Amino acid sequence: MIQRMSRILLKTLRDAPADAETTSHQLLVRAGYVRRSSAGVWSWLPLGKRVLDNVARIVREEMDAIGGQEVLLPALLPREAYEATGRAEEYGDLLFRLTDRKGTAYVLGPTHEEIFTQLVKDQVSSYKDLPVILYQIQTKYRDEARPRSGVLRGREFQMKDSYSFDTGEEGLAAAYRLHREAYQRIFTRLGLDFRVVSAVSGAMGGSASEEFLAPAAAGEDTFVDCPACDYAANAEAVVFTAAVPAAADPGPVEELDTPDTPTIETLAAHLGVPASATLKNLLVTVDGEITAVGVPGDREVDLGKLAEHLAPAVVALVTAEDFAARPDLVRGYVGPQGLDIPYLADPRIAPGTSWITGANKPGRHAANVVCGRDFQVDRHLDVVTVREGDPCPRCGTGLTLGRAIEIGHIFQLGRKYTDAFQVDVLGRDGKPVRVTMGSYGIGVSRAVAALAEQTADAHGLCWPREVAPADVHVVAAGKAAQTELAALAADALHAAGLRVLLDDRAGVSPGAKFADADLLGVPVILVAGRRAGEGYVELKDRRTGEREELQLAEALRRLSRPDL
Amino acid sequence: MIQRMSRILLKTLRDAPADAETTSHQLLVRAGYVRRSSAGVWSWLPLGKRVLDNVARIVREEMDAIGGQEVLLPALLPREAYEATGRAEEYGDLLFRLTDRKGTAYVLGPTHEEIFTQLVKDQVSSYKDLPVILYQIQTKYRDEARPRSGVLRGREFQMKDSYSFDTGEEGLAAAYRLHREAYQRIFTRLGLDFRVVSAVSGAMGGSASEEFLAPAAAGEDTFVDCPACDYAANAEAVVFTAAVPAAADPGPVEELDTPDTPTIETLAAHLGVPASATLKNLLVTVDGEITAVGVPGDREVDLGKLAEHLAPAVVALVTAEDFAARPDLVRGYVGPQGLDIPYLADPRIAPGTSWITGANKPGRHAANVVCGRDFQVDRHLDVVTVREGDPCPRCGTGLTLGRAIEIGHIFQLGRKYTDAFQVDVLGRDGKPVRVTMGSYGIGVSRAVAALAEQTADAHGLCWPREVAPADVHVVAAGKAAQTELAALAADALHAAGLRVLLDDRAGVSPGAKFADADLLGVPVILVAGRRAGEGYVELKDRRTGEREELQLAEALRRLSRPDL
Repeated sequence: MIQRMSRILLKTLRDAPADAETTSHQLLVRAGYVRRSSAGVWSWLPLGKRVLDNVARIVREEMDAIGGQEVLLPALLPREAYEATGRAEEYGDLLFRLTDRKGTAYVLGPTHEEIFTQLVKDQVSSYKDLPVILYQIQTKYRDEARPRSGVLRGREFQMKDSYSFDTGEEGLAAAYRLHREAYQRIFTRLGLDFRVVSAVSGAMGGSASEEFLAPAAAGEDTFVDCPACDYAANAEAVVFTAAVPAAADPGPVEELDTPDTPTIETLAAHLGVPASATLKNLLVTVDGEITAVGVPGDREVDLGKLAEHLAPAVVALVTAEDFAARPDLVRGYVGPQGLDIPYLADPRIAPGTSWITGANKPGRHAANVVCGRDFQVDRHLDVVTVREGDPCPRCGTGLTLGRAIEIGHIFQLGRKYTDAFQVDVLGRDGKPVRVTMGSYGIGVSRAVAALAEQTADAHGLCWPREVAPADVHVVAAGKAAQTELAALAADALHAAGLRVLLDDRAGVSPGAKFADADLLGVPVILVAGRRAGEGYVELKDRRTGEREELQLAEALRRLSRPDL
Repeated sequence: MIQRMSRILLKTLRDAPADAETTSHQLLVRAGYVRRSSAGVWSWLPLGKRVLDNVARIVREEMDAIGGQEVLLPALLPREAYEATGRAEEYGDLLFRLTDRKGTAYVLGPTHEEIFTQLVKDQVSSYKDLPVILYQIQTKYRDEARPRSGVLRGREFQMKDSYSFDTGEEGLAAAYRLHREAYQRIFTRLGLDFRVVSAVSGAMGGSASEEFLAPAAAGEDTFVDCPACDYAANAEAVVFTAAVPAAADPGPVEELDTPDTPTIETLAAHLGVPASATLKNLLVTVDGEITAVGVPGDREVDLGKLAEHLAPAVVALVTAEDFAARPDLVRGYVGPQGLDIPYLADPRIAPGTSWITGANKPGRHAANVVCGRDFQVDRHLDVVTVREGDPCPRCGTGLTLGRAIEIGHIFQLGRKYTDAFQVDVLGRDGKPVRVTMGSYGIGVSRAVAALAEQTADAHGLCWPREVAPADVHVVAAGKAAQTELAALAADALHAAGLRVLLDDRAGVSPGAKFADADLLGVPVILVAGRRAGEGYVELKDRRTGEREELQLAEALRRLSRPDL
């Protein structure tokens, strides 16, 4: 197929929209692949639709290869199902909610665990009907608080979601493994640089889960990587073991006079101890209840991580009014000993560890405050912000930190949803068996953005061939002989089975055409230019920038090589 | 690709759901192609998804062939755009409405005229950028008051919608013609029996429009067909010319004593005149205002037609309270002469025609009541129900009536939407030109149902090959030799490039497998049965029921013929 630029709906822009901060947002808009419809809601224009379709095709082929069965479920889903599992509440404002003319409550599906579980309950009755892997490539909706970065984080987006159903843990593990391998093939074929990392399951629930992350500066996820072993994880999922040794023989609690030391820095300087020897206590409210969170003095609390742990409860910092109502809480001098509020703490605050912390009196701290002896931790939670150089939980080597885009996520859900909907099948022994379930997602439209982020250069987009909207971009520089030779080249390439984008626009300067070709990012650019009269064309490799002048016939031979 | 029935999610049902009244609804559910998610919202299961994809592929190929450019626009659309054109109000309760977390108003797109118009305004600036045809195959939403007939009239459904943009009437006419021809090719390839008929444009607006109707008893549209000329139209679009001749010399109005004749039947019998000589006046309220609608005594008012004409005004029948408030309106004896309420009438009530009608006094009628002399018609509207045998508006021959499913609709919208959004391009003469627009739709999921309606027989579905979920349905009757031969046949057919559905289920009787094969409707059924031990298989043509016993090799040769 030849796509003629004189005919397709394509308006390239010299400047990116003012609000476009990431490379993919800027370039996908400038190159006319996508256009914003409303905040976080995008239209895919002709070239963008081709790229999206190419990604979807690769996903489909690999899902079919592991025995996935493609279906298409609705986006308009009964809210009831999401209430039955508690996810309507967990998702909160992230769910688009609506009612129909009769007042029945619906949501626009953010992901389909409930509905697939109900479908399988209806369709499957015996262990003989299992295992089954169902998938769809479908439109998903999430009312993000801050939709941004173009199609990287939209409110309406394309997702491949699949669901496996089995009779036992082994089957679930096998389906999970199949997906893990299929995802690796998919992202490899897409030409993405990616890591498989341990992840937290969040609102999805379930036991084990891993994320597929595409390292990119524009990414919203932080992941850690161990340079020594193969450990890699989403920063939110890193669970540190207590790195602070228990004190050998801590003496009794000793109160210290520490005037004007309301911060860890001032305290450590005053006492001449490292910040890591002190215990910092952050006060928050959890669904309105004042709660203290303890971390070593040299660490920061990651409020996002904390909120994730405690969801759907609402977490907020305490206010001046909260303090005013509780004179027992002395701002800057809070310690966990003797407090009558819930106390959450980092795992480093392990039983037997000894700390310098607030004495709950203005200007005073306490030393030798021992966890388990002088105070109790109600719940250990990993809530500290990971830092470059933190020890690898597996081998202790200093971790490196990177930004990445989440392009896939696989979950072993176990029985969370099949319990909610009581999905049993007849087992091999004639008794009912509760079905196990896995859920697996790929952000199809997000993968396009991730690929743009990773492959773009200073001149524009730069697609791998299997994803590109065309195999060859043929540019007619402008004069009659050039236009003629370009048309000839396009026809011949088309006849050879290649997908051709032909820049046959009249009244556009050669310079503008070359700039557009670089911007659009088709991997090979064929120019009928200066020496078109002699039958020469120029072949340019978009990625390397290498150029070569060749007779058209030779150029066609090169491009038709199946190994290109 | 071989689809094994032992592995795919497929549960056929002996009985249709209780609420399934139409053939397609019953069979698509029984055959496991679709499952209901909520009222009018359906899931497409593996075999159904294949049929849906096949229909979409044919649509896509023919749209590409007329130069259509595929895009993908969102379903979540700013309500503002629909308010700008007045369609938010016109659609009323048919629109799914929602707001996001910030309170911004959205709709789920029922069709995308507004959004494509805005897109083109943004992307196109010169006559050189036109003409352009954009299309998408995308999910649409309409909150139908009575979703029914399965996927025939759903609330979430798949539609191909396309939009043409041109600088003048000629271009619009050309794009319209291209679509008309493409639609004829699409429906022919789909194997549908269809008619192209004149249509009313309804809420869409614009001048000319035609519908593609698939005759079927389950259809919700009534169409007329002229056996003599090529006239065909949706019954709602039939416009009759006044068939009642003007009276030569009507005398003055004469009041008649007609006790106990509150109905046309009693009146005609009492006076010994045909019902067609009388004028029937129906009282309705239009947005609360009492209005009379006059039609010849032998005709019925089609309230749907009337409501369509007057939309978005709300039309209702008058109530007893309405009468109580207006003693001048004498129930059963209303006549238009001297009435001070709006008077709408059928075109047959033409100036100069003379009628017997109510005298606005109990038990009394008036004769020689002449239109234009004794009363005025405020607005002529074609609101009578079409009847079998009504004269063809083109040639006068008696029309035939039929039920049909609307599978496509094409509109010459003209400038309705480009005026609303002020879409101008630079014309050839350097001056701005207002763009003309066409809009064209095919119900992709509905086409599946229409095809099921037209092709099913007493045993089940019966797909044309290009749409069927497989080319050949291979049935292993059950014994080891049969299972082996069936597997061999499936592999060989697959190797020959055919799509195979293999019934390899254990523990299912041959009778149940044969019944399922008939129900699923793959065009060719290959059975490894009684004579499998000798290498014989049976080939069955699903449509004709013809069977033939052949050696497997011969059967394979037959099935691999490209002309099959």
